[in-house]
Amino acid sequence: MNKKDFSGHSIDPAVQELLGKAKKESIETIWDRYETQTPQCGFGSLGVCCKICLQGPCRIDPFEENATKGTCGADADTIVARNLIRSIVAGTASHAGHAKHLAHILVKSAKGEYKDYPIKDSNKLKAVATRLGINIEGKDNNVLALEVGKLALNEFSEKEEANLWAATTITKGMADNYTKLGVVPQGIDSIISEIMHRTHYGNDSEVTNLILGGVKCALADYASCHMGTDLSDILFGTPQPVKTEANLGVLKENAVNIAVHGHNPALSDIIVQMADELDDEAKNAGAWEGINIVGICCTGNEVLMRHGIPPATYSVSQEMAIVTGALESIVIDYQCILPSLTNVAECYHTKIITTMPISKIKGATHMEIDEKNARDCAKDIIKTSISAFKERKPEKVLIPDEKTTAIAGFSTEAIVGALSKVNAEDPLKPLIDNIAEGNIQGVCLFAGCNNVKITQDKNFITMAKELAKNNILILATGCGGGAFARYGLMTPEATKEFAGDGLKNVLTAVGEAAGLGGPLPFVLHMGSCVDNSRAVDTAVAIANKLGVDINKLPVVASAPEATTEKAISIGTWAVAGGLPTHVEVVPPVLGSQTVTEILTEKSKELFGGYFIAESDPIKAANILYEEIKNRRKGLNLE
Amino acid sequence: MNKKDFSGHSIDPAVQELLGKAKKESIETIWDRYETQTPQCGFGSLGVCCKICLQGPCRIDPFEENATKGTCGADADTIVARNLIRSIVAGTASHAGHAKHLAHILVKSAKGEYKDYPIKDSNKLKAVATRLGINIEGKDNNVLALEVGKLALNEFSEKEEANLWAATTITKGMADNYTKLGVVPQGIDSIISEIMHRTHYGNDSEVTNLILGGVKCALADYASCHMGTDLSDILFGTPQPVKTEANLGVLKENAVNIAVHGHNPALSDIIVQMADELDDEAKNAGAWEGINIVGICCTGNEVLMRHGIPPATYSVSQEMAIVTGALESIVIDYQCILPSLTNVAECYHTKIITTMPISKIKGATHMEIDEKNARDCAKDIIKTSISAFKERKPEKVLIPDEKTTAIAGFSTEAIVGALSKVNAEDPLKPLIDNIAEGNIQGVCLFAGCNNVKITQDKNFITMAKELAKNNILILATGCGGGAFARYGLMTPEATKEFAGDGLKNVLTAVGEAAGLGGPLPFVLHMGSCVDNSRAVDTAVAIANKLGVDINKLPVVASAPEATTEKAISIGTWAVAGGLPTHVEVVPPVLGSQTVTEILTEKSKELFGGYFIAESDPIKAANILYEEIKNRRKGLNLE
Repeated sequence: MNKKDFSGHSIDPAVQELLGKAKKESIETIWDRYETQTPQCGFGSLGVCCKICLQGPCRIDPFEENATKGTCGADADTIVARNLIRSIVAGTASHAGHAKHLAHILVKSAKGEYKDYPIKDSNKLKAVATRLGINIEGKDNNVLALEVGKLALNEFSEKEEANLWAATTITKGMADNYTKLGVVPQGIDSIISEIMHRTHYGNDSEVTNLILGGVKCALADYASCHMGTDLSDILFGTPQPVKTEANLGVLKENAVNIAVHGHNPALSDIIVQMADELDDEAKNAGAWEGINIVGICCTGNEVLMRHGIPPATYSVSQEMAIVTGALESIVIDYQCILPSLTNVAECYHTKIITTMPISKIKGATHMEIDEKNARDCAKDIIKTSISAFKERKPEKVLIPDEKTTAIAGFSTEAIVGALSKVNAEDPLKPLIDNIAEGNIQGVCLFAGCNNVKITQDKNFITMAKELAKNNILILATGCGGGAFARYGLMTPEATKEFAGDGLKNVLTAVGEAAGLGGPLPFVLHMGSCVDNSRAVDTAVAIANKLGVDINKLPVVASAPEATTEKAISIGTWAVAGGLPTHVEVVPPVLGSQTVTEILTEKSKELFGGYFIAESDPIKAANILYEEIKNRRKGLNLE
Repeated sequence: MNKKDFSGHSIDPAVQELLGKAKKESIETIWDRYETQTPQCGFGSLGVCCKICLQGPCRIDPFEENATKGTCGADADTIVARNLIRSIVAGTASHAGHAKHLAHILVKSAKGEYKDYPIKDSNKLKAVATRLGINIEGKDNNVLALEVGKLALNEFSEKEEANLWAATTITKGMADNYTKLGVVPQGIDSIISEIMHRTHYGNDSEVTNLILGGVKCALADYASCHMGTDLSDILFGTPQPVKTEANLGVLKENAVNIAVHGHNPALSDIIVQMADELDDEAKNAGAWEGINIVGICCTGNEVLMRHGIPPATYSVSQEMAIVTGALESIVIDYQCILPSLTNVAECYHTKIITTMPISKIKGATHMEIDEKNARDCAKDIIKTSISAFKERKPEKVLIPDEKTTAIAGFSTEAIVGALSKVNAEDPLKPLIDNIAEGNIQGVCLFAGCNNVKITQDKNFITMAKELAKNNILILATGCGGGAFARYGLMTPEATKEFAGDGLKNVLTAVGEAAGLGGPLPFVLHMGSCVDNSRAVDTAVAIANKLGVDINKLPVVASAPEATTEKAISIGTWAVAGGLPTHVEVVPPVLGSQTVTEILTEKSKELFGGYFIAESDPIKAANILYEEIKNRRKGLNLE
């Protein structure tokens, strides 16, 4: 059994090595379970299975030899569209829950009730407040935070005005188009409720109406993501470039290793803040390297961006962190957490600690967040992890010798900051000039998940290298960010190795001006999946400066290993925002030609953006490059 | 081809006759489509199919020979529970949308912006306001309506306090229990959002936590239903006993027949109000009997309860209304409308008119409601229907000679009104005394839909007759109400024929005291499916008077032909409210023993109510009777 045996599962050598260990120890992994699930249901995969009422389940025969309609009369178009927009709802609800949680913390912080959450970044607070139309003159942080927090909470309720977080962060052209199409998001929760209503038995069956409803919901998802980013920055600081290491080799044999996992930094940031305080306790317990916090998934990204916490692993390989035998605990908030973690942990000493009331796992230790005493909570969790260290079985430890340097922390503010070293007066000018001159051909945002159906990270890495050599700058978030970090693509060296000459020269000039002593990475890590909003901010800033909408810019997106409903809602607002958006695995829409055409063709007329389905990563990269070239032509650029 | 050939589809002779006509004319019906769908997917039917992420679809092998877990590690329990509570979400969202629509109308009515919606029932307005804690002294209708309307709209948003509509309409014991269990609903839309979040990939996987989340959402559904009823009564009048006729024989050969269909009376009530005004126009077009408005589904129930509009048909047989060839239009609002209606209508002159932005159908004429000019909207729709009359093809007309008398309109207020004729001081006393003495053994609420899998109405009628002979009083809503109306069970004669002696004597005494000149029907039609809240009001009034909770009363419920997600959410709050609740078709939960046990057993400990699955209607009736007897014993009654 060697690493090669698992090269179809993941290109990550650390994961390959641990899969060998798991196999030896008879640990069931996500790849094993996937195998027991194949072949998967073709009806479900095409989206033509409907379980919305008790007269079903119904399914449409894609070959039209059998049923062409469900019992109620819904055809494949209606069924696919309803299923799709319900998944957009779930994605939106997830980001909404995340953002709302932070809005509550901000309000209570402002009121002095949550003392463990002081305002960390008052500049960001002021910037957000100003953008929302709040007069900031003479107001202290708490007054402002209360106003921002209240406006934030108000965004979830039904109201007549457009959602502020969406309306104030896009171009005027986009806003006008959304108004024209009737897709302006208002209250976030209320739109979620509306879409669940309209997809109930015997409601909306007109496909375009359904899809536009989905777009409205997706724009509420965008608003939620943006709010999540803004409020996290206010409470925990706006990221600045930070150097770290990535991959499972960041676990330390002689430390109490704690992984923070999920998406919301509300508790994990506090855990990071408290780790030092308990370092001695860990040492006393025999862990002479003290406490070592590492990240998994987007909670990992949050603390990576703000504290340089090393990301251990992402998504499909999260079970491998336990298989190292060196992990004392996984502290979970919510989203993308495999329920299997507790099963894997049964074979080790690792504590699976759930902390959110809406995300419990059978067999886990539930230590619920209490924001009034967040630091105490964090302490308890760290102490529990220290206790677990004593149970570690050294003979079961295998920490792969795999880690790579990664520079992260590229918030929009950080990028503008770096550019301002080149042109302090007009920081965006060097970027725009270089795009205009063709040194940078365009920009591609990589987002989304890993998916067990795709060799982990293969699409991300293959596509990014292909695009970079064509002088396309890469932005990355989520598992995408994690992928690039773990293969050394977020380094000056990678820029030298993989970027085309034009791009390399620009990144070198900016990197040196910014005092980094070398080029910027050609992949800029913007953060977690809510932080896709940072990429929009950057694009909108450029669009506004050029006086065009995003749908004219040489900017594209890809979620090349998509898994979650969040990825579907984000993809939908990326398309509605004007981006040609590549997605693989294709969501279950292919059972309806009409829906597929709306998503891949008609959306071009409606929004300028559209979905691209292509499973081959090289071909996908080339399609995106062609799109970039087309857009350059549209702008009369070479 | 005779009626008997379709006796497996429906026990309704009108439906049977029209199915023969449909067959002859090669019209595809819901029963035909259902046949093409069988056999249906066993995984979906058991609830063990998961389509929540793009690594799926996954399915659990119920025989445990193959996959026992989804790719992510979710087992059958998690998958079933997640699917179930998402269906509760959709049911809740539907009632929420319905109630919110009316709340907006109330607010605008109060502000003088919607002149076509004056306050119709100021007594109800005052009663609701008082219940909500509003001081009504010296306030006129509009002031009160504005306060009530604003409180109503506020119920949808996240807030710290319990949802007012729920909290003020249940017993203290129930409220305390809900608080203890952490299932107190707050904002309606916000809970919908929360449940969609917690069921996203990688969140809640602990079954009891998931189900309790579903209960919280279902209680928000209850609040929405109650609000829907209250606001409809305020705007359109609280029902009082009314006599009408039911079944497709209510269509008139020489009238412009217009069916109002869906659930929300916002437009249909206005159409009824406007019909007289356009009667001459219809006559001039050749329809010498003028305009004949009839009802389908719960919109039909709404205008039946308040105006005595005859209900033509319900649910699975809605297509048959078109097959008569005598229907000029179906005016649709939302919920439970077959998308096939436009296909059937292609073969006739019938106009399918959609009126709500969230419920469009391909091939329909969309005439969107404009509440500012609701009477004009209604006029346009009626005029369109008059035009359609000219296109009617007499050779295609077949109006079955089937209609029966039905007395409906039994709001809680109407029941108390009738009882007060027996005891003006203490109206509930005669009812309670007769329950205590055993003349009335108990009460059963029949609710829910028809389902194509069950011979239409068979379960309703069989069970009601069986229960009535055992002196159990029947309350009915929704398609249940429609079923009983169409077979003559809502008449004094039916009481004489089917009710046991004890029940018959009580109903005769009350009916005669109330001046009806004969017994009350043994089935009291309480209205549409949101009006299940009326049944709760009645039960809570009795419970409060006796100083016990509903879960001690000899009161049971049944949705014996359930179809929709709304039925699932209503069933869940019935159980949480303490009712033994029979349901057939069983929702897709049987794939998880744990979930099934929670719903049918553990819920008994938690709430006192529980689900009963039994497909045989006689057995089901007997089980419910046994439950009633058990509860009587619990109260030390004979």
